[in-house]
Amino acid sequence: MKNLWEQLVTYSESDYYPFHMPGHKRSPKEGALACYKRFPKESAPPCYKRLEYLYQYDITEIEGFDNLHDAKDLLLALQQKAAGIYHAEQSFFLINGSTGGILSAVSAVAEDGKKLLIARNCHKSVYNAVVLNRLQTEYLYPQVIEDFAVQGEITAKQVQEYLAGRRDICGVVITSPTYDGVISDIREIAKAVHACHIPLIVDEAHGAHFALSENAPESAVQCGADIVINSVHKTLPALTQTALLHVQGSLIDRKKLKNYLGMYQSSSPSYLLMASIDQCMDFIAEEGEERYAGLLALRDRVDQAAAAFSCIRLMPAGERRDTGKLVISVKETGMTGWELYRILLEKYHLQMEMAAPDYVLGILSVMDTEEGIERLTGALAEIDREISGKDEKCAGIKNEKKRADMYNIERPVSVLSIYEAIQREKEWIFPEEAGGRISGGFLFFYPPGIPFLVPGEVVSEEVICKIRQCRESKEYMTGISDDGKLCVLKCCKLK
Amino acid sequence: MKNLWEQLVTYSESDYYPFHMPGHKRSPKEGALACYKRFPKESAPPCYKRLEYLYQYDITEIEGFDNLHDAKDLLLALQQKAAGIYHAEQSFFLINGSTGGILSAVSAVAEDGKKLLIARNCHKSVYNAVVLNRLQTEYLYPQVIEDFAVQGEITAKQVQEYLAGRRDICGVVITSPTYDGVISDIREIAKAVHACHIPLIVDEAHGAHFALSENAPESAVQCGADIVINSVHKTLPALTQTALLHVQGSLIDRKKLKNYLGMYQSSSPSYLLMASIDQCMDFIAEEGEERYAGLLALRDRVDQAAAAFSCIRLMPAGERRDTGKLVISVKETGMTGWELYRILLEKYHLQMEMAAPDYVLGILSVMDTEEGIERLTGALAEIDREISGKDEKCAGIKNEKKRADMYNIERPVSVLSIYEAIQREKEWIFPEEAGGRISGGFLFFYPPGIPFLVPGEVVSEEVICKIRQCRESKEYMTGISDDGKLCVLKCCKLK
Repeated sequence: MKNLWEQLVTYSESDYYPFHMPGHKRSPKEGALACYKRFPKESAPPCYKRLEYLYQYDITEIEGFDNLHDAKDLLLALQQKAAGIYHAEQSFFLINGSTGGILSAVSAVAEDGKKLLIARNCHKSVYNAVVLNRLQTEYLYPQVIEDFAVQGEITAKQVQEYLAGRRDICGVVITSPTYDGVISDIREIAKAVHACHIPLIVDEAHGAHFALSENAPESAVQCGADIVINSVHKTLPALTQTALLHVQGSLIDRKKLKNYLGMYQSSSPSYLLMASIDQCMDFIAEEGEERYAGLLALRDRVDQAAAAFSCIRLMPAGERRDTGKLVISVKETGMTGWELYRILLEKYHLQMEMAAPDYVLGILSVMDTEEGIERLTGALAEIDREISGKDEKCAGIKNEKKRADMYNIERPVSVLSIYEAIQREKEWIFPEEAGGRISGGFLFFYPPGIPFLVPGEVVSEEVICKIRQCRESKEYMTGISDDGKLCVLKCCKLK
Repeated sequence: MKNLWEQLVTYSESDYYPFHMPGHKRSPKEGALACYKRFPKESAPPCYKRLEYLYQYDITEIEGFDNLHDAKDLLLALQQKAAGIYHAEQSFFLINGSTGGILSAVSAVAEDGKKLLIARNCHKSVYNAVVLNRLQTEYLYPQVIEDFAVQGEITAKQVQEYLAGRRDICGVVITSPTYDGVISDIREIAKAVHACHIPLIVDEAHGAHFALSENAPESAVQCGADIVINSVHKTLPALTQTALLHVQGSLIDRKKLKNYLGMYQSSSPSYLLMASIDQCMDFIAEEGEERYAGLLALRDRVDQAAAAFSCIRLMPAGERRDTGKLVISVKETGMTGWELYRILLEKYHLQMEMAAPDYVLGILSVMDTEEGIERLTGALAEIDREISGKDEKCAGIKNEKKRADMYNIERPVSVLSIYEAIQREKEWIFPEEAGGRISGGFLFFYPPGIPFLVPGEVVSEEVICKIRQCRESKEYMTGISDDGKLCVLKCCKLK
């Protein structure tokens, strides 16, 4: 069978005339060209010509192209192809990102009056799903990898202990791999969760590339999770906003899940996005092994270069660490992650994924080039030489600006569900006055992207102290207003 | 300021190397080319080369490109530009279609314990929003344009009468223009709604092109609606899945609205989709008037051709009828809309938007060509000649297969909210056994796309009779299982 791109190309070359949406009428000559008259004409092929092609292949649910929300032929077959590649019983194309998948997955397992057990470092879409479903939550706190100030795994033991004797939990949500590339033991966690006859949802947004090769880490689907969500665009060659949801086993109400997928995703799904997912599936099937070997080779080159650095350190890849994530640590230097990020961007034109107090994160994919790797390792070597040449010794420097202890904060006490707290009347006050009050919003220090407070949790003196520290070091916080205030519930104070 | 496409083009030509998402690394040479090796190489420029360009401009929230969910510079400015074009106080780019906007709008006005007053012919996303917010609903039924078997307006009088003395309604949702191009008097409806100090949401998904010209119908924003949602892709040259949400006045909690937009839309929004919206805004600003005049001229040609038909009729455009919608009626012929749709598709390669029992719907946009119009009018003239040449006289034929009376069904009685009904235990039974039972699902005859039953409503004998009729004439129904059963609540029967 032709893949979706091929079918769109074929269709665009036919003489079918569109009296339907989209309004651009797939018409580069008459329509899109006029749109692009503002572009410089000197480039070859001219930029404005290139953009036409986006429109040429952009269709809606016309004859022969099925309907994503009620897939019966073409899109059903393509989704089955994806399921085959991911070893899933059933897979769904997602065109509203992993977000749409997470919202649907949590909604499908939600039960009124029950609680959801989630990893505290879950993506905000999990918290949003909790709000939409008015669920109560309990949290699994990830371990901390102190050496790199990175959040670590959720262990099966943790999950097992948490669930022992519990009858009020309707499902468990774990993120693996994390943004930083830390993989949890999903096989053992799934066993622990299934022992309670409840489903496990794994947010594997950052692990779509595990499907490339037998040599890649085992995917959460293969490890027995009930629902797994993969962002295709994050680590594989697919357009931004594309993802997959896989489902297996008997613990998920498939009809309910499908209903929610239809609710949270546009009823005019983009065929460009879908074609990009499908193209990526062929890519995995045809070139996955070879490409994954190429990724390992590139990573090897980064590792070898990093081994020669004096101060900058690279978190090693390994069984529970994704090869595709470069955690470039400045923990043992006088530099912050943000400073390194700025230098790489401004001096070397290397755009990294993210900066944290103690590290910079880079994403390595099967599409990277040797030239790119050379530029990165060359830049890091140069910066490393500069740092280590300075008076200050790099090893063992205690940089006051950093906050590796950020993770070790006391766990907040929750007195209201997130939804209940959000519904209450709120006010904004200075953190110093907020001790014992109940939080009305989320408080994040980003990264790590783990919420320090969620709505309904008591503001402790320790949290207030952290906010002050962060403010002084001008760190990025969300949940604090421009004038430095914190959102709390009105007329509620607990001690 | 350069528009977003221009900025993406410029960025793609820079030497910044991406160690970030997306995984395709904007790399046609190294990456995307390999993806497209399956494409035929003979075309010029080769198809596989064209597709590269999609990837070249597809970025994520990197330096200088802002963040849709917390827009502060570039995307804020572009959204302000859109607001200017639509005369709105504030506008938001939507990358999960109008769906994401509708869900957010309803969620922003929802209040626990209150009811939402919605037009019965609202899009299913409005019903989905009702479910997600666990709202109770009451309905405004559109009038029927009997001559064309098309659903008509909601009147201000209807709204006024409905709201008189009510204190339990938290908001009103109307669709205008409808799929078929029927426009309600939003100015008067807004007055009636605002008299109760509650907000009016207008689903203007099919009216984004009203912004093109002073001569186009007034937009719902200009008429005073509090939230208006426009699908940019439906009637304007923008990519599928793009839309805008406009907000104005003091009745909407903007912070709450923005929160929900962040919840229902991907946290990895596509810059291709956003650039396509922005490009369309420039298109409106620069060419709107001229293009709208072109659309009127094309419509005029269709009208003139249709005036000469003997049997096929075209619903006239006018003050309350969108120029861009071609309702091609076969009500006075022996043919059904589906039959006409098939002939246009198979014999003439004209892909229409939709077929109904009594008509075929076509969308005319500013991107249509004279050649397209000639093909359509030529085809219709030929079909019209064939029909009128047959023995059966075209005028006044009563075709048993049609169902213009479909709209005049008695209004169902609701005994449970949609959410409550959905939560209950359900079973599937034959319609003949369902009299007096409470519906567990939605029942649609498509089109008109107005639900005949929503969950929580009592199944009447009249509805059962309609289901039988539709089954016999093999019409498209949703809400009936493959074996012809209807979903009802278990253990509930009301008489």
